[in-house]
Amino acid sequence: MRQSHLFGRTLREAPAEAQTPGHRLLLRAAIARPLAAGLYTWLPLGFRVAEKVEQIIREEQNRIGAQEMEMPVLTPAETWKQTGRWEALEPITFRTTDHNGREFMVSYTHEEFVHQHAKQEIQSYRQMPQIVYHFQSKGRDEARPRAGLLRVREFVMKDAYSLDADAAGLEKSYAAEHGAYARTFERMGLDAISVESDTGAMGGDVAHEFQVLTEVGEDRIAICTNCDYRANLEKATRKVGSSASADGIPAPSPVATPGTTSIEALEKALGLPASAFLKTLLLRTKEGVVAVVLPGDREANEPKLRKLLDVPSVQFAKDSDFAAVGGVPGFVGPVGLRSVRVLMDVSLEPRGYVAGANKKDTHLRDVVPGRDFSGERVDVHDVREDDACPRCGGRLEIKRGVEVGNIFAYGTYYSTKMDATFLAEDGTRKPFVGGSYGIGIGRAVQTIIETHHDDRGILWPPSVAPYHVHLIALPSTDEEVRARADELVGALERDGVEVLYDDRDDTAGVKFADADLIGIPLRLTVSRRTLKEGKVELKPRGKPDAELMPLGEAVAHVAAIVRGWPDLPEMGAR
Amino acid sequence: MRQSHLFGRTLREAPAEAQTPGHRLLLRAAIARPLAAGLYTWLPLGFRVAEKVEQIIREEQNRIGAQEMEMPVLTPAETWKQTGRWEALEPITFRTTDHNGREFMVSYTHEEFVHQHAKQEIQSYRQMPQIVYHFQSKGRDEARPRAGLLRVREFVMKDAYSLDADAAGLEKSYAAEHGAYARTFERMGLDAISVESDTGAMGGDVAHEFQVLTEVGEDRIAICTNCDYRANLEKATRKVGSSASADGIPAPSPVATPGTTSIEALEKALGLPASAFLKTLLLRTKEGVVAVVLPGDREANEPKLRKLLDVPSVQFAKDSDFAAVGGVPGFVGPVGLRSVRVLMDVSLEPRGYVAGANKKDTHLRDVVPGRDFSGERVDVHDVREDDACPRCGGRLEIKRGVEVGNIFAYGTYYSTKMDATFLAEDGTRKPFVGGSYGIGIGRAVQTIIETHHDDRGILWPPSVAPYHVHLIALPSTDEEVRARADELVGALERDGVEVLYDDRDDTAGVKFADADLIGIPLRLTVSRRTLKEGKVELKPRGKPDAELMPLGEAVAHVAAIVRGWPDLPEMGAR
Repeated sequence: MRQSHLFGRTLREAPAEAQTPGHRLLLRAAIARPLAAGLYTWLPLGFRVAEKVEQIIREEQNRIGAQEMEMPVLTPAETWKQTGRWEALEPITFRTTDHNGREFMVSYTHEEFVHQHAKQEIQSYRQMPQIVYHFQSKGRDEARPRAGLLRVREFVMKDAYSLDADAAGLEKSYAAEHGAYARTFERMGLDAISVESDTGAMGGDVAHEFQVLTEVGEDRIAICTNCDYRANLEKATRKVGSSASADGIPAPSPVATPGTTSIEALEKALGLPASAFLKTLLLRTKEGVVAVVLPGDREANEPKLRKLLDVPSVQFAKDSDFAAVGGVPGFVGPVGLRSVRVLMDVSLEPRGYVAGANKKDTHLRDVVPGRDFSGERVDVHDVREDDACPRCGGRLEIKRGVEVGNIFAYGTYYSTKMDATFLAEDGTRKPFVGGSYGIGIGRAVQTIIETHHDDRGILWPPSVAPYHVHLIALPSTDEEVRARADELVGALERDGVEVLYDDRDDTAGVKFADADLIGIPLRLTVSRRTLKEGKVELKPRGKPDAELMPLGEAVAHVAAIVRGWPDLPEMGAR
Repeated sequence: MRQSHLFGRTLREAPAEAQTPGHRLLLRAAIARPLAAGLYTWLPLGFRVAEKVEQIIREEQNRIGAQEMEMPVLTPAETWKQTGRWEALEPITFRTTDHNGREFMVSYTHEEFVHQHAKQEIQSYRQMPQIVYHFQSKGRDEARPRAGLLRVREFVMKDAYSLDADAAGLEKSYAAEHGAYARTFERMGLDAISVESDTGAMGGDVAHEFQVLTEVGEDRIAICTNCDYRANLEKATRKVGSSASADGIPAPSPVATPGTTSIEALEKALGLPASAFLKTLLLRTKEGVVAVVLPGDREANEPKLRKLLDVPSVQFAKDSDFAAVGGVPGFVGPVGLRSVRVLMDVSLEPRGYVAGANKKDTHLRDVVPGRDFSGERVDVHDVREDDACPRCGGRLEIKRGVEVGNIFAYGTYYSTKMDATFLAEDGTRKPFVGGSYGIGIGRAVQTIIETHHDDRGILWPPSVAPYHVHLIALPSTDEEVRARADELVGALERDGVEVLYDDRDDTAGVKFADADLIGIPLRLTVSRRTLKEGKVELKPRGKPDAELMPLGEAVAHVAAIVRGWPDLPEMGAR
């Protein structure tokens, strides 16, 4: 590819709104361009990267026997309504209505449609296990797209779906996908770890995310420094347990706390640590008001609350709700609330706390959970650094990560709702047992950049680099240089080496800076100076040393390096 | 691929609603399945065909220097509004509104967005010519999806866009794409002819369609039996000319025609042929009422009228419109109409016709176009079989065709509206000169089936067949048969031969019927009977003769046949 005609212009500076190193380099190196907030175009360089990422995913899916197919982007409302997701997904999806009034969703994912097809295509247990997958555009009505391709409104996802005859089959398919994911990310240069995760909108109980640890990530992951426990904070727990005892603690008694409505203010006013207080959150749900009680030094974890309450978002109580249950804003506490469902976080110890008295300017001392109030024991707190691992008691660390893949074992969640059954070995009809497995292409590409760059630009892992070699002619206006460079490009391409050929009429400074920015693994320079010695210069991106080699040996030498790279996807003619 | 686990079940009978041979075979052979009306899923077999079609297109686009990229499906309204297409395309597109009220179109095509990108990526005439393309899903709100993949509501299109500095450049790019299209269709086994076509929603003047002639097509094509003139009836013209003369024809005089309101009734009542009458159509447009006058034996061509009137659909006048211009329904004629734009079709001769008198139960004799009424001379009639070729006067035939590709040279239609300019050689800023070039994947695949089948099933051209070889084990429960078949599959695949392996526990009848239905070019049978002689049976699909060959030679023999096939796309690992 001649760079003089490449559709995509490198930028000296990234637009000010670019938020992460990967986002900045994505724009500067002409990998992708926004069409609107959260809607991106792959420019030709980025498209090549995306295709290689796709091909690696494809090869690893095919290796475990998955079959590629393609379902549409527009999906009919009727099917979504069978599982209740037409309504549940409303806040985060795009919908459209045709001129006859029929409704469609710009597809969010395809579980419903795989089950619809399975009803027709799979009749017997003998035809399973089955894994099908496709690469297809997904729409997400993200209120706040951010950080380039990390959070967008449309993206191509590889989504795979396993169909098994029983739970044991699902376990095997899930394990096969887990293994395929590990190989997939490794091949594209992503150091992804598998962590336990919430099942979110997918249903079911078991789910894992593949997380790449980086400061630009939105997710927070609890990682045990001792054992292999790793979980998204949306799901992470910790070992709780206390030797505290309520023995001898007197009954609650009021303490005047005029105008003291926050834990912080209480700490100051009473000279006690945050952990001495109870934090009581009043939430409103369709079923009424819910009080969530935590120690004063713990934060509630919103995803855990959403899952527990089965709501799309957590809503705080309004003044009218406070009045209805006998709570006083700023002084609410679990003792004396009426008509309320009480959730007691597992962090609460059997000892005395200071809690709101449900009376203006007043708190209660010596409130003992379980003695002075009761409720359901639940885990709704945010795990934090230095907490004890729930598995081994070791120290937990909290890291930021980007979720590059997720896998869900939802079992019969969809098949029972959709009456999607097959003929089982015992002659009865049984519901399909399923799982789904997603990887977003754009997010993977940007995460590769986030974790493979220096201050000059990108350092592509060879397996996903847009080209293998960046060949630079200096100056391209010199006839001899041009002729030798043209020959080299031709010979390299015949040997299966992909070449971006900088034939532009530009200075060495501009060309080398662009080469560093674009980040192709090998830079081959043909210049008047090197040709004087009958040589060309080879420099690997990210290494300081350039190597001069005889012109006649360059093609064989470079081709050997490229053939030696592991993990290259087997692309067709591009 | 083991057929026992193929996701996709062949059907003995096609659903009753399947309208064409291709539609029926598409469903029966498990190539595609509908998800809803006009929304189709590629099952794994069909997906492989679609991928090969795509790869052939890709290779031919790359051969002319086009660069692959990818633009999103969701496209922002603001950009469409710059060219007026947000409104113009409303009747046939899907729209969505996000939760902040911003509007998007499920993309219909991408001219606007290529120009948006070109503004940023292309600065100078030196960077052109440029052709970029992508494969992307398109939405079309078709009121009546029909005939499987021939007319759908969502489909993947390869759309390419050329950008040039001037008209001469566009002409070259257009010619390059025209050539690429010819090679593309030939490679996938489609006998497509290039015909002149209307530019429709794309703007500009020059456009061609690639049409495959088949009775199932929706389009009608005029083809000269003498020269190379070929045009879609939406655009086709004919040689007109007449030696008729109005000399000596008396002035119009009334004739009583009680209750005679159609050409057919007039023919009977007056004993004259249809060509003796004038047909006057009153249409309503934003600019007022338009009268279209044609000979009684000619039909108006709606696409020509739409283009001429610049309206999305032709609307007939209402009673109030008749009253306003002095027309009487059933007896309308061009003489005496008031405040009306009159369009006189070029078919009208300078002779006397019988026309409506704009008076109930009355017509006029001896109405001479140009003498008794006047108007703009336009071509709005439907060309028909046996008309004279506009180029050579030869006889025109009318054939049905499926449009498998279209190309448009729209020039500065978009760039001027979008202020999309580059720095020209003379130092001024000039608008990009563009063209666009589309091929629908699904329609191409079904058209291949429509033109490559017999009464047993599909006969895939080798270049796009889902697999090269259908290997049949008979019975697959026989250990020896199974072992030899397994070995053959492995050896063939190592040699680059793609094999669908029928390992199902089914009868020979079922397996052979499926093989004929699915239509893979070579059938290789390993059975107890053939193994007794140490042989296997090779049979090309669609040929009567099966050939027995030694087991040990089969792999080399088959691999040689496959390597000898022309036009195979270079797929990566699949």
